[in-house]
Amino acid sequence: MSYLGVGVSPGTVPVYHGTNLRVLEKRIRIAELVLRCVSLALGLLAIVLVVTDSQVQTFFSYQKRAKFTDMKALVFLVVANGLSSGYTLIQVLRCAISMFRGDVLFSKPLAWVIFSADQVIAYVTVGAVAATMQTAVFAKAGQRELQWMKVCNLYGKFCNQMGGGVASAFVVSLSMVVLSCISAFTLFRLYGRNKNRYAGW
Amino acid sequence: MSYLGVGVSPGTVPVYHGTNLRVLEKRIRIAELVLRCVSLALGLLAIVLVVTDSQVQTFFSYQKRAKFTDMKALVFLVVANGLSSGYTLIQVLRCAISMFRGDVLFSKPLAWVIFSADQVIAYVTVGAVAATMQTAVFAKAGQRELQWMKVCNLYGKFCNQMGGGVASAFVVSLSMVVLSCISAFTLFRLYGRNKNRYAGW
Repeated sequence: MSYLGVGVSPGTVPVYHGTNLRVLEKRIRIAELVLRCVSLALGLLAIVLVVTDSQVQTFFSYQKRAKFTDMKALVFLVVANGLSSGYTLIQVLRCAISMFRGDVLFSKPLAWVIFSADQVIAYVTVGAVAATMQTAVFAKAGQRELQWMKVCNLYGKFCNQMGGGVASAFVVSLSMVVLSCISAFTLFRLYGRNKNRYAGW
Repeated sequence: MSYLGVGVSPGTVPVYHGTNLRVLEKRIRIAELVLRCVSLALGLLAIVLVVTDSQVQTFFSYQKRAKFTDMKALVFLVVANGLSSGYTLIQVLRCAISMFRGDVLFSKPLAWVIFSADQVIAYVTVGAVAATMQTAVFAKAGQRELQWMKVCNLYGKFCNQMGGGVASAFVVSLSMVVLSCISAFTLFRLYGRNKNRYAGW
């Protein structure tokens, strides 16, 4: 994202009043790239951990394999992280190209697209993690009142690996929350209210 | 929120360039108040529907009462909506006083507080709704692979009333998402990037 204002669309050319602003914008730009890289790596890790998770248990003569498709919330988690990772990959490339070339066009419509997409991804990943954590609580502790028995005492290895996947997805959702704030900042400051920029930071 | 800029803190006094800006700010201000009122009313409705929900079923000589505390997600939903409603009540009063008097102090620290609180409430309510919907899916359809039986065929009235509560909470979470965008706009435009305000709307 062209925080440095290079290549901004006509009519939105910023005026700089010191090095503080440049430093702040550079920091935000770096923080965004780092967070998107973290989000991408952990999103892929979460998918791998969840999708490859499997455990077979034998009950008398009957064999039962636990897999992530047994729980709809885990399928939702994989889909949400797949969506997030695909989108984040595009954003990482955009950020990297922008930092490398410094001449990517930055416009209000593009800022609106990024802001909207970041908001959607943030809420979808948070929702997926919340639904999965609820399922994990049932799997770990059961729900006696509804006679839903705990399953993690039967499938310990499966639950442990799943816990790693959910933890990764949790960090992804936190990263996306912060990134959605950064893109809100990037967008709405284009609709600046006053000329005393950065007064009162 | 003093979108009209009346009573803003020193150093952030806006300069207006036309009626379009005034109309836009007034619309945002009214939209915020309406959304907060909707959020407050439906949040309280969700709490009432969930907390008062109860159904007794007799199995042979054994009586079993279904109540919201049987499911942790519903307790989380009630807490999240209680938190949201309490906070929203304060915000409704602030918005109403601001519109009535037009002289409420508006400062960056206050904008940061409102932005942060809106973000937290939005994500908490979305998370609570997601976790509750996951529980509702289990209650409605069961999870055959885990031998978690569906319970809504036994407690139909209970599930129907609960559905109303979850639907209300869902609308609250959507309202909070939009409100968090409005407060992000209100905050970050104070860190305006350029002087050509509202160019390109």
